[in-house]
Amino acid sequence: MLITFEGIDGSGKSTQVQLLASWLQERGKKVATFREPGGTVITEKIRSILLNKDTEELSYKAELLLFLAARNHLLMTKILPLLQNETIVILDRFSDSTIAYQGFGRGLNVEEIQQLIEFATDKLRPHVTFYLDMCFTDTVKRLSAESSRLDRFETLGESFFEKVRAGYHFLQKREAQRIKMISGKESIETIHSFIIKELQENFSSLL
Amino acid sequence: MLITFEGIDGSGKSTQVQLLASWLQERGKKVATFREPGGTVITEKIRSILLNKDTEELSYKAELLLFLAARNHLLMTKILPLLQNETIVILDRFSDSTIAYQGFGRGLNVEEIQQLIEFATDKLRPHVTFYLDMCFTDTVKRLSAESSRLDRFETLGESFFEKVRAGYHFLQKREAQRIKMISGKESIETIHSFIIKELQENFSSLL
Repeated sequence: MLITFEGIDGSGKSTQVQLLASWLQERGKKVATFREPGGTVITEKIRSILLNKDTEELSYKAELLLFLAARNHLLMTKILPLLQNETIVILDRFSDSTIAYQGFGRGLNVEEIQQLIEFATDKLRPHVTFYLDMCFTDTVKRLSAESSRLDRFETLGESFFEKVRAGYHFLQKREAQRIKMISGKESIETIHSFIIKELQENFSSLL
Repeated sequence: MLITFEGIDGSGKSTQVQLLASWLQERGKKVATFREPGGTVITEKIRSILLNKDTEELSYKAELLLFLAARNHLLMTKILPLLQNETIVILDRFSDSTIAYQGFGRGLNVEEIQQLIEFATDKLRPHVTFYLDMCFTDTVKRLSAESSRLDRFETLGESFFEKVRAGYHFLQKREAQRIKMISGKESIETIHSFIIKELQENFSSLL
């Protein structure tokens, strides 16, 4: 089973990934978690190119292609073998991020991105996606203690993140069956309970 | 004007790139040369991921997507501005390499690659391409002094390079007007003269 988490930076995804992984492990399930891009020596190198602010600015299409390269490599070397080994794989970001950030955020053509994603993922889709919905202002407020993460918000700006958020809303409406939305402003416990309830109600056979 | 050089590793491309650049500069032309992947801080980082043999093996699609990411970034940040500035750009490898190596060599779908190339290059095509044709055995013989480059030949093997060469022959037949083929076994001077003659005969207006 493949479960993904989506949302803008600082929406609380990684906390929920860890809580869900622990909950599943306590129930005797084999679980693996990865953040995208990352998870292997090569994909962490790609991540460092994508996040490096010291070098020149990356072209938007190159940014997109680097994310997809990292995704395919993680898929082939880790995710697919784990899924075949009956491990539940939980991802902090996957294809929806590409549509939201590179499509809606950067303004690249969404249909072209969709085709590229299908190429890079061999059309693998998550069974379920949890989207933690947060607006720019609330996220910046929450992150005010973590100045290193705030940098990214200042650089990209409010209008960029609101476009990304609009992208997530577009995807959530288009695939309401797969993408479960909850406000990232809810407490950590409330969001975790929502996730567990969804999985128990709709995926008990897979769990 | 955009001029590209193609051929398997060790076929003598970089020597001819330098000779042609010097010839054009002596005639007062503005010239820029790049090797692919490379040419900027970011694309050299991508190159080091592609050529690094210490880490795990890269998935074939990730390899393709990394080459395309580097190509788009070099295009947007260097090649297009130079072409607009009436500079003649000479590239050591471009899109034909992707078809020959990732398509014919690795066995990825050539039509899909073609679409991805069009996306990554915004359909930019070279005015002329010089393809230096060499078989595996002759190349290995020539490179026998350079052991570091021989490693790559041993790792990938003769059948890989013969598939790549078949890819170049396929492209050359399909686009005989653009792709000028000459045997890489000819002397450096003979190949250089062939290139100059082609340019003078067919591209005098662009030069």
